[in-house]
Amino acid sequence: MPGLTITFTTDFGLDDWFVGTMKGIVTGMAPGSSMIDITHQITRGDIWGGAFALAASAHYFPSGTIHIAVVDPGVGSSRVAILIGAGKQLFVGPDNGVLSLAVRDSEIEFIHSLENRRFFRPDVSRTFHGRDIFAPVAAHLANGAMPSDFGPRLSTFIKLDWPRPTRSGSCFCGEVIYVDRFGNAITNLGTDELSGCGTDSHLSIRSCDVPIREYYQAVPTGHPVAVLGSTGLIEIAINGGDASHDLNLARGSEVVLAPDE
Amino acid sequence: MPGLTITFTTDFGLDDWFVGTMKGIVTGMAPGSSMIDITHQITRGDIWGGAFALAASAHYFPSGTIHIAVVDPGVGSSRVAILIGAGKQLFVGPDNGVLSLAVRDSEIEFIHSLENRRFFRPDVSRTFHGRDIFAPVAAHLANGAMPSDFGPRLSTFIKLDWPRPTRSGSCFCGEVIYVDRFGNAITNLGTDELSGCGTDSHLSIRSCDVPIREYYQAVPTGHPVAVLGSTGLIEIAINGGDASHDLNLARGSEVVLAPDE
Amino acid sequence: MPGLTITFTTDFGLDDWFVGTMKGIVTGMAPGSSMIDITHQITRGDIWGGAFALAASAHYFPSGTIHIAVVDPGVGSSRVAILIGAGKQLFVGPDNGVLSLAVRDSEIEFIHSLENRRFFRPDVSRTFHGRDIFAPVAAHLANGAMPSDFGPRLSTFIKLDWPRPTRSGSCFCGEVIYVDRFGNAITNLGTDELSGCGTDSHLSIRSCDVPIREYYQAVPTGHPVAVLGSTGLIEIAINGGDASHDLNLARGSEVVLAPDE
Repeated sequence: MPGLTITFTTDFGLDDWFVGTMKGIVTGMAPGSSMIDITHQITRGDIWGGAFALAASAHYFPSGTIHIAVVDPGVGSSRVAILIGAGKQLFVGPDNGVLSLAVRDSEIEFIHSLENRRFFRPDVSRTFHGRDIFAPVAAHLANGAMPSDFGPRLSTFIKLDWPRPTRSGSCFCGEVIYVDRFGNAITNLGTDELSGCGTDSHLSIRSCDVPIREYYQAVPTGHPVAVLGSTGLIEIAINGGDASHDLNLARGSEVVLAPDE
Repeated sequence: MPGLTITFTTDFGLDDWFVGTMKGIVTGMAPGSSMIDITHQITRGDIWGGAFALAASAHYFPSGTIHIAVVDPGVGSSRVAILIGAGKQLFVGPDNGVLSLAVRDSEIEFIHSLENRRFFRPDVSRTFHGRDIFAPVAAHLANGAMPSDFGPRLSTFIKLDWPRPTRSGSCFCGEVIYVDRFGNAITNLGTDELSGCGTDSHLSIRSCDVPIREYYQAVPTGHPVAVLGSTGLIEIAINGGDASHDLNLARGSEVVLAPDE
Repeated sequence: MPGLTITFTTDFGLDDWFVGTMKGIVTGMAPGSSMIDITHQITRGDIWGGAFALAASAHYFPSGTIHIAVVDPGVGSSRVAILIGAGKQLFVGPDNGVLSLAVRDSEIEFIHSLENRRFFRPDVSRTFHGRDIFAPVAAHLANGAMPSDFGPRLSTFIKLDWPRPTRSGSCFCGEVIYVDRFGNAITNLGTDELSGCGTDSHLSIRSCDVPIREYYQAVPTGHPVAVLGSTGLIEIAINGGDASHDLNLARGSEVVLAPDE
């Protein structure tokens, strides 16, 4: 029988041995696990970015998947490490918000603090809890350890704010919340706002109006276009280009969804 | 029994959650599959680059391997998605040529259009067919679905041109077709041209003559050298350096294979 | 039963098909092996960097793991390929030192030259021994081939120098030996030197004194700090910053561990 799936979302990058070492721990303790990288290229210390990447991907994994997320600028300090059960999946990481977006639409089944050193490596470093705490905890979970064994139940955990669009007359004001590797700028405007605004509408970015189309190549090469992206959110792209660069869009950039005249 | 092998060749990069999400779909539907990345660092939209990378690697995988290639600037448009059976392997991707170089020397067993939505995710986005079509199709194939179940048989598919060397007297004129991460410039000149030119020959790049040697370090550090590379093609390198940069070589750069005086 | 674990440490990068091709060989010959990347982003030809990354990670893998390391500027020349058994693990790669740091604290059980072409691919290229020699050798080892089958026993192999700290009065003089992706500069000073220097001590880098603390965030954001890192060595960081860049540290930079006044 194939083992459970364990995913990894970190800001460790791929230049060093950090990710491989975590997997070495897991393969030794829970052989047969399927280990899948979501990404290790989160900008260093960018908790929001890690949380968004995990949230965009987690629900495409099967029930029982154990997600490890380590974007952890506070490693070694007194920040808490947690295990969350939600949506029939398990989430392991620092309690700094990095797990929070992935579970925000799920019923939270339990939250436990990771305190029982029996599930850690014998010598826990102050700089690499991915190796010394989170990987062995995930392996123990894959092997059937009970969540309550890891530490006391918590009533809450740190949640990142999800910026909500605001309505202004017939328009919706939103913002860019993530820029992907293609330079596509993902906004916090989605199907609800599109429905509210009507079928004929467009995005305004400063003085630039961007048409909403069904796919990127529905506009000529080099032209901006807004599409309902794969995360269920409107994203701004340039067909064959880099919208973030060319339109000067970054996280927090304001966008307005408005009906066509 | 270990599952089948599924490979991934994309331009999705490693910064975001795209690749991990595709693997989440596969691990949920076809647990036990061995999922192997060929590369995700194809230059955005570079269909030729993706096709070449897949072609250079595919035949080192075992029979039954399912190769997914997604370099797909036309995603969401009316471009067709296909499944090709060739050389006892399966190839899945958009019908834009990205699969064509990998199968150009194999007998094509069948080509099917991917149309049967029963094998897709319920909601197919217009921007991420890797997740919504190609990953679930590959998983169904790994689970034993019949190629003919996916859609009607096609008689042909889009093929990329492979630039042929031309003979000119005792010389062969070719070109650079790929530059790798080491800056080595792979040409379309191979063993046939080497045989035709004789054992004592060299490459000419503009006014620069590059000796043909058996391995990189057969010339002093910093010197250019041409070797018969691992793809069976002559590549131009600089021992310890970057030939593409130092010799200003890019895809399409002309090279001439000539006998030594 | 899950297969053995095979790791990969190379300077092949992730842009091309090199790593995927090696895995294609392994999955075809030894299906069910767990293939784990340590890193492929070693600076091209940086044998020390590859050796350090492998050494920092190898011992977190289970007994029986087969480690492949290919940082191999001499590929195709007369350099020897070797197999080392040490610490209940196997190490495969060129005999240029890249395996040496990982085994320097282990009892060497055996060293064999890789010469028996029966374990190679039929056509061994002069440029890609990762595919043609090291991957198939690792797969044969995973399948139970005896080390002595691969070639004659050797009495020694090439070892990289590990720079030793020197004592000078109450101080220890060391140097930076690795800079990681966070810009943290790992030194050759560890617990022994810390014990010798006393509990209240600091690092001096040129005219800059860096306090030793237990974790990064024990100093304000933007301030330098030295911590005992996850490799058991003192590393110099900037909380939230890049120490290598800001303090102009590179491999070989001198640092002094000194008692506080």
